[in-house]
Amino acid sequence: MYLMRIGPAGSERPIVRLDDERYVDVSDQVPDFDESFFRDGGLDRLAGMVDERVRSGALRHFAGERVGAPIARPHQILCIGLNFSDHAAETGQAVPDEPIVFTKSPNTLVGPHDDVRLPRGATKPDWEVELGIVIKKRTSYLASIEEACDAIAGFLVVNDVSERAFQLERGGQWCKGKSAETFNPAGPWLVTPDEIGDVLSLDMWLDVNGVRRQSGSTSTMVFDPFFIVHYLSQFLVLEPGDLINTGTPPGVGMGFNPPVWLQAGDVVELGINSLGSQRQRVIPAR
Amino acid sequence: MYLMRIGPAGSERPIVRLDDERYVDVSDQVPDFDESFFRDGGLDRLAGMVDERVRSGALRHFAGERVGAPIARPHQILCIGLNFSDHAAETGQAVPDEPIVFTKSPNTLVGPHDDVRLPRGATKPDWEVELGIVIKKRTSYLASIEEACDAIAGFLVVNDVSERAFQLERGGQWCKGKSAETFNPAGPWLVTPDEIGDVLSLDMWLDVNGVRRQSGSTSTMVFDPFFIVHYLSQFLVLEPGDLINTGTPPGVGMGFNPPVWLQAGDVVELGINSLGSQRQRVIPAR
Repeated sequence: MYLMRIGPAGSERPIVRLDDERYVDVSDQVPDFDESFFRDGGLDRLAGMVDERVRSGALRHFAGERVGAPIARPHQILCIGLNFSDHAAETGQAVPDEPIVFTKSPNTLVGPHDDVRLPRGATKPDWEVELGIVIKKRTSYLASIEEACDAIAGFLVVNDVSERAFQLERGGQWCKGKSAETFNPAGPWLVTPDEIGDVLSLDMWLDVNGVRRQSGSTSTMVFDPFFIVHYLSQFLVLEPGDLINTGTPPGVGMGFNPPVWLQAGDVVELGINSLGSQRQRVIPAR
Repeated sequence: MYLMRIGPAGSERPIVRLDDERYVDVSDQVPDFDESFFRDGGLDRLAGMVDERVRSGALRHFAGERVGAPIARPHQILCIGLNFSDHAAETGQAVPDEPIVFTKSPNTLVGPHDDVRLPRGATKPDWEVELGIVIKKRTSYLASIEEACDAIAGFLVVNDVSERAFQLERGGQWCKGKSAETFNPAGPWLVTPDEIGDVLSLDMWLDVNGVRRQSGSTSTMVFDPFFIVHYLSQFLVLEPGDLINTGTPPGVGMGFNPPVWLQAGDVVELGINSLGSQRQRVIPAR
């Protein structure tokens, strides 16, 4: 299934996408794709609901409504740093022995085509195409990689927007440069694992103003999504609906010589095979 | 006012404490002390509600019910690192030029007297008595310290429990050692600012097994609560009900020579003048 949320920011409706033209609206039975939806087995019920509505012909056609993030604001957004060996190299840092974990404020989550707003005082705003994981159930101390697979609701595209000066030059804890408003475009879809052939061989790309900046593949991740979920569950409790950004391939702005930073007016486009694509306009600080 | 939540974990009722014996139950009109309560002006309405019930004699007496955290699980828990100059010294680190910001998973929040569970593999679990701030309204780019004062719902005691090996020796981003289940006891009360004479002259203390380990005062903070709220609002959007742990005075376990780490069976007691006290039993990993 391809889960989406469409409608104005703050009042999106949960729907299930059938193809580029058609969807099933489930908002009469599903309040939102949020923590309680995933916790209460909503994903399993959703399949039956969609089948029934497809049989009864209750289909709708996309008509240009805004696309929101495919999940409601999660309990937490966890991120993995330097998870592609060639990205670690371009930032001048060593490949980590184990996942580096940092966070973004959950209210950074926005739709895949919403504007990205520069924070005040930004001097080094940067992009990061990433594979996101959404958690399906409350998860702690997973015993195996198989259990980690079972804990995953699906995958999606995220742009882990970063302000490098705030991240790296203002105290050393990265969340300071990761948490500005609009800094986590997500979607357009949350794709359930059964729809994806092999999540470890998906091409990833990101363009700025039509120039290809990032090219990569999930096949070159240092720590794969299942390892990451298993690993995180040893340190903290993952809640249903939690989002994990799994790290970016090479080609971020700070990796160029000289570096290339985002500016107001830029257009960022990014995507991952099977998971759809995003397009954001960069706008000035408030 | 002194806001509390009492009852079994996960189904606490919001009440307002009048004194050590008596309280007003507001759970028929207030679903919880959560984000929507603070956002929708609940704190202002609460004062009238309490006055009315006190006048009508609708008082109850505490009868040994469990005390939960005084706020529901927040959107985010932000923390300030090394915010007491003598604590920075004991950890061998410099006093920062500006606040160091890190996070804890919001689901670490527990009641003030709940057990603290050691995470599996813990070797350096530690304590930190701290002044917590709860945010009253959605807050971004505050223009002044006065605006920061207006954005604060109240203050409370928190124990910013930490696993130092996970925090400092496993990749460098601190959230990994701050986010284990039960790692943020909070309460017993959320105290509104009008009840506190001067929040910058409150004594802070923490005992382990009856031995005084931390003694300090909010007067020696490097960055005070109002500065911190103003500062954070320049980097991210604070939501109503968000919790900010403002840093710990000297006397944490890692500051002793040799270091003193928490062990299963230990009893931790801590408190801040005017804000009440906590008592936790340390229990083994699951």
